[in-house]
Amino acid sequence: MVHLPNSIDANLRRRALRVVPRGMWGHQNAANLPAGYPQFFSRAEGCHVWDVDGNEYVDLMCSWGPIVLGHRHPEVEAAARKQEALGDCMDGPSAAMVELAELLVEMIPHADWTLFEKNGTDATTVAVTTARAGTGRRKILVARGSYHGSAPWCTPSLAGVTAEDRAHILQFDYNDIASLEAAVDRADGDLAAIIVTAFRHDVRRHQEMPTPAFAKRVRELCDQADAALILDDIRAGFRLDLAGSWESLGVRPDLSTYSKAIANGYPLAVVAGNDRFREGAGKIYATGSFWCASVPMAAAIATLGVLRRDDGPAHMAAMGEKLRDGLAALARQHGFALRQSGPAQLPMVMFENDEGFALGNRFCAAALRHGVYMHPWHNMFLSMAHTEGDIARILEAADHAFRDVAQQAPIPASGG
Amino acid sequence: MVHLPNSIDANLRRRALRVVPRGMWGHQNAANLPAGYPQFFSRAEGCHVWDVDGNEYVDLMCSWGPIVLGHRHPEVEAAARKQEALGDCMDGPSAAMVELAELLVEMIPHADWTLFEKNGTDATTVAVTTARAGTGRRKILVARGSYHGSAPWCTPSLAGVTAEDRAHILQFDYNDIASLEAAVDRADGDLAAIIVTAFRHDVRRHQEMPTPAFAKRVRELCDQADAALILDDIRAGFRLDLAGSWESLGVRPDLSTYSKAIANGYPLAVVAGNDRFREGAGKIYATGSFWCASVPMAAAIATLGVLRRDDGPAHMAAMGEKLRDGLAALARQHGFALRQSGPAQLPMVMFENDEGFALGNRFCAAALRHGVYMHPWHNMFLSMAHTEGDIARILEAADHAFRDVAQQAPIPASGG
Repeated sequence: MVHLPNSIDANLRRRALRVVPRGMWGHQNAANLPAGYPQFFSRAEGCHVWDVDGNEYVDLMCSWGPIVLGHRHPEVEAAARKQEALGDCMDGPSAAMVELAELLVEMIPHADWTLFEKNGTDATTVAVTTARAGTGRRKILVARGSYHGSAPWCTPSLAGVTAEDRAHILQFDYNDIASLEAAVDRADGDLAAIIVTAFRHDVRRHQEMPTPAFAKRVRELCDQADAALILDDIRAGFRLDLAGSWESLGVRPDLSTYSKAIANGYPLAVVAGNDRFREGAGKIYATGSFWCASVPMAAAIATLGVLRRDDGPAHMAAMGEKLRDGLAALARQHGFALRQSGPAQLPMVMFENDEGFALGNRFCAAALRHGVYMHPWHNMFLSMAHTEGDIARILEAADHAFRDVAQQAPIPASGG
Repeated sequence: MVHLPNSIDANLRRRALRVVPRGMWGHQNAANLPAGYPQFFSRAEGCHVWDVDGNEYVDLMCSWGPIVLGHRHPEVEAAARKQEALGDCMDGPSAAMVELAELLVEMIPHADWTLFEKNGTDATTVAVTTARAGTGRRKILVARGSYHGSAPWCTPSLAGVTAEDRAHILQFDYNDIASLEAAVDRADGDLAAIIVTAFRHDVRRHQEMPTPAFAKRVRELCDQADAALILDDIRAGFRLDLAGSWESLGVRPDLSTYSKAIANGYPLAVVAGNDRFREGAGKIYATGSFWCASVPMAAAIATLGVLRRDDGPAHMAAMGEKLRDGLAALARQHGFALRQSGPAQLPMVMFENDEGFALGNRFCAAALRHGVYMHPWHNMFLSMAHTEGDIARILEAADHAFRDVAQQAPIPASGG
């Protein structure tokens, strides 16, 4: 499981460098990962993936979220094939669009309607535009460091972005009520929406659940200002709670955005909204050539059906807890201070005081050599395909990886 | 072929009205079409589509562009199924990404590299952002009325859009050199790009090919200002010229955008660029959960392969000419003044001086009753699946439709 200079992956990277800027781009760019990580994949089944050199891994990224039942889930594939035999991208949607909209409105308590898109960024942009159209106001409050997509108004890089693209974006700190109230004040009567992720899942930092007081205050401030509370559930949606990730907090958004897990890898996104914003949503113009294609909608109906029938969130939580407990025990045993944050279904695993992710990078690179694909500074994802056997295999690899790291470097002074 | 109040289509519309704002949105909203048009489709094969009530139509919309070989083309479906059996949305791309990038760089003379996205709007936004990142300047020149997607910077509706979203957009008139030069002057040294569609294909008006002088002047002005010429080939791409729609004019863009026809209905978009903008493209951050999925890339390789091998543009031009000649002859015969504009592969068929598309709407509604799906005020699309037999069937329906329209209304005074 080493990628030699003459490996298939290395050769593809060399070819890509000629015809793709920097050879790769975006969140799946393996240049952001420790040496040894493959860039190109050849096969996927359940929670197992194979790189182009034939190495197999138990996968903890789930394609960065979309794969929620496991790759090539038979019920989803059967639904997709059945729809495909009829038609996919046609002159209009099929009945699957209405069935999926009805299913989502039934599943998500705050939702009276849905609008479909293709990417997560489409959904957040449609939600923000809907909030502006519905309120006639302009300011959007965004938590500092939260990821809401890669359009100019929200992308984490400022290259090619103008100041005007963000003229009406005001920042606050997640879970910090005082900073939220200050941002509402700065909106100065022009508040269209507050957009929040389901929990704090920013890259390169420990995850943080929303405090009940914070969630409640977001709702109150939106109500007072007659603004939209947008819950961005693209990352966490359908893994924590099929009714929406803030349902257990008793706080319901006006608009929520979903993508990633909704169709087990088939491309689809959705904005769900309440009746207050139905008119605003009906006014805006946002569309795409493939937005009403039927195969992803049929796949979504099948995916959500399995998640409901088999209580997907509970299975993913159980497997995630097993992984978390196991990793914690191994870290103690090997004398490492590990910090695991966020919900069990979307684990973030980092070492304490790990400057530049030095230990995290070594640990993940070692786990990879032992057949497990983890990420050192982005949250990972459980799926319904992860079994106790897979978790055991991950823990076995982690045991080896902790040992490898301990042999490479002394345990940091702050550890233990 | 009449949609009764208790038809399946009408029932789906009623259900949709409850769970989707206005019951439907975007370009595929049948509320924009004459009464009788179906909203929902159940099946598609080649250039034939079936609505949910079982009515069959010869289709001239090709799903608004994506279907370039015909629905369910065996070679594309085989390539898609083969890739699907391995994996689609994985932790990274497959080798298909490199193969497709190499193929595009080989096919498109101005292209040294490509970046993939999912929607046309993604591609135009990435192109504009790349131009800004590459030049360090901000102004983007856009032709008045041209459609470049539905993000806030370019969507045709202003609902939910702020003035700042368009702060650096300057307008000119397509094919009007003086207005173009004036817009460059207004950019005042801050010009990042001029973006142009392959030809003028705005909705609700006759199409217009670019004059060679206009195309040449766009190139000169970009060169003088060291700005990017962006050719938006999303609508026309792979139907007029596989090397790019301006190749026959001898004018090559710096950046070009494609989507729609690239993968015969599978969702994919691409920005192709030259080496001048490679660094700019490498700086920006734009990505999406499904952008590197392998099935659409495998489908694109198969689609482009068929288009090249069988000279797709020539077939579509030949069938389009046959359609155009036949419609012109029928219009003369029935005493109507028909104006057919733009390239034969993307026909726009409108009646002269047809206030509110009164005749066009009646003609298209009648053609629909006779089994042909046309559009009264948006360009249509030929595909490789359209045979001489299909064109004959369309002309037979048109003959009936002209007769129906003539019986309903006197020929307008200006006609003939």
